[in-house]
Amino acid sequence: MNRKITLLGGGSWGTALAKLLSENGHQVTVWLRDENQCIELNRERVNKKYLPKIQIPDNIIFTSNINGAVKDAEMLLIVTPTQKIRSVLKQIDTEHKKDKIIINASKGIEIGTLCLVSDIVKEETTDCTFAVLSGPSHAEEVGLSLPTAITVACDDKKISEKIQDTFMSSYFRVYTNEDVIGAELGGALKNIIALGAGISDGIGYGDNAKAALINRGIVEIARLGIAMGADVHTFYGLTGIGDLIVTCTSKHSRNYNAGNLIGQGLKKDEAIKKIGMVVEGIPTTYAAYELSKKLDVDMPIVGAMYDVLENDADVKETVNKLMLRDKKDEKML
Amino acid sequence: MNRKITLLGGGSWGTALAKLLSENGHQVTVWLRDENQCIELNRERVNKKYLPKIQIPDNIIFTSNINGAVKDAEMLLIVTPTQKIRSVLKQIDTEHKKDKIIINASKGIEIGTLCLVSDIVKEETTDCTFAVLSGPSHAEEVGLSLPTAITVACDDKKISEKIQDTFMSSYFRVYTNEDVIGAELGGALKNIIALGAGISDGIGYGDNAKAALINRGIVEIARLGIAMGADVHTFYGLTGIGDLIVTCTSKHSRNYNAGNLIGQGLKKDEAIKKIGMVVEGIPTTYAAYELSKKLDVDMPIVGAMYDVLENDADVKETVNKLMLRDKKDEKML
Repeated sequence: MNRKITLLGGGSWGTALAKLLSENGHQVTVWLRDENQCIELNRERVNKKYLPKIQIPDNIIFTSNINGAVKDAEMLLIVTPTQKIRSVLKQIDTEHKKDKIIINASKGIEIGTLCLVSDIVKEETTDCTFAVLSGPSHAEEVGLSLPTAITVACDDKKISEKIQDTFMSSYFRVYTNEDVIGAELGGALKNIIALGAGISDGIGYGDNAKAALINRGIVEIARLGIAMGADVHTFYGLTGIGDLIVTCTSKHSRNYNAGNLIGQGLKKDEAIKKIGMVVEGIPTTYAAYELSKKLDVDMPIVGAMYDVLENDADVKETVNKLMLRDKKDEKML
Repeated sequence: MNRKITLLGGGSWGTALAKLLSENGHQVTVWLRDENQCIELNRERVNKKYLPKIQIPDNIIFTSNINGAVKDAEMLLIVTPTQKIRSVLKQIDTEHKKDKIIINASKGIEIGTLCLVSDIVKEETTDCTFAVLSGPSHAEEVGLSLPTAITVACDDKKISEKIQDTFMSSYFRVYTNEDVIGAELGGALKNIIALGAGISDGIGYGDNAKAALINRGIVEIARLGIAMGADVHTFYGLTGIGDLIVTCTSKHSRNYNAGNLIGQGLKKDEAIKKIGMVVEGIPTTYAAYELSKKLDVDMPIVGAMYDVLENDADVKETVNKLMLRDKKDEKML
């Protein structure tokens, strides 16, 4: 079925998804803040800055008129950086952000409020159905039509199946899941582990340490998730450990790279300065640390990262403490 | 507590574990088939062939007298390649392979019989307690005292805690688990996915495809495991996906490398010839395929690999079929 879909944002992920949806026969509009960028993209059909190798199909419309863009759309796809989502949604007139299907494809927690994107959408829109599209998916690879598997989570099974039908193609396999909070938390908290993986590599530890960090990291993220109402299985799926694997083994993650610098001995602030962009894993570590205290959830890795980031604890000593803490059964959640 | 522990085999993994156990204060004997190698190791204290960078502690004894080596040992640690375990155990007199704790640290299925190591040990010894030591653990890194986390699985909780106490150190964290068959299957079947990851990289697919393969691969391995009596959570732990992450992202795995050649267009037999060693992922794929038919378990990735290996199916077409098969919910096990 041919659907009207509007993307809010047009970075690399937005461009790759717009191309996919257009190939699948949908009417795709992309809203961008910058009118000049819209003019250029409508003419050039290449996103030089974010996804230069990909030819953008001719029938995708780029516009800076947000109300015009969302007015008749059945589905809105959020591909705006998480920290900007609230201000983007505020620009839409109330009547045009009502009774829509809103699919979020951005990861992270809103710094300051600690809101997940579902919370932001609930606060800023009316009677919309919220879904999350998440999983191990470098935009560049999706743009090149390389095989990718991803999950759409929505508590309304019919809607998640509708979204599955909308996105699925020969190179883009979509699984449904009903656990929205689990899918959101996996994506939001993964940067903590990416930061930790960078620290581990930066100090000179090996693949064993990194695999243990990824594996035990997702266990404690799952533990927090359960306390917040999520289903443990989600964290072992594409939105959880699946996405973590890609994030922690890619050298392109700025969280990984910031961690790497910290592992090599830089202070947190020096590392942030050198990266020159927001290192979301840092405030996210603080947020998870606060949540673990509030909800009384045991999160030894998050606690150790907090110690390193906030109290300048020595990384090797901290790892030593982690390794020698109470002996455990693997399945204790 | 100081324990008498004998290792059967002394490759890289055996050498690293012998050093760890000796550091932990235990009396360690290593049995090797080759008397000359024993003489050299007792004198040189370096395993030049398998772990050249590691100094072997002076109190470790190397001997080719297998009955002498195991006679007074409380624990036997198997670090022999899986295909040789049965013949090694057959060399021990019946009275000396009775009432021991036998810990297996080798991974794989016995080709031909399709026995897991627990089956082999059951058939070849008397009244022994069997445990599995498994997880993401490159021997080189353990030898260098780099942080590693691993699982010991034993259906007797007291024994697994005893083994945990025996092995645990500041760089070697041990978790217990009661699911022996789950831990064994994860280690045995991971080479299928490593082979698949190599094929995926060889044909030019990206990180998204590989992460999906690892993640969905462990789901179907878990599905088979459940049908064989294992606990699903084990597959999401260190012996399952933890180990898979290390295996599929390391360029040193010969299964990965064989897959890579197949992905580049070589036939199975050409790839095996070029690797020049047993590529266990191939017979293991066949074994898993047979088991999936016998137990009526849905294993699409294993089925696809079987098609590629046995029927020379085109890889891209096979992946296409995988991507477009029935739409699914992520948590369907």
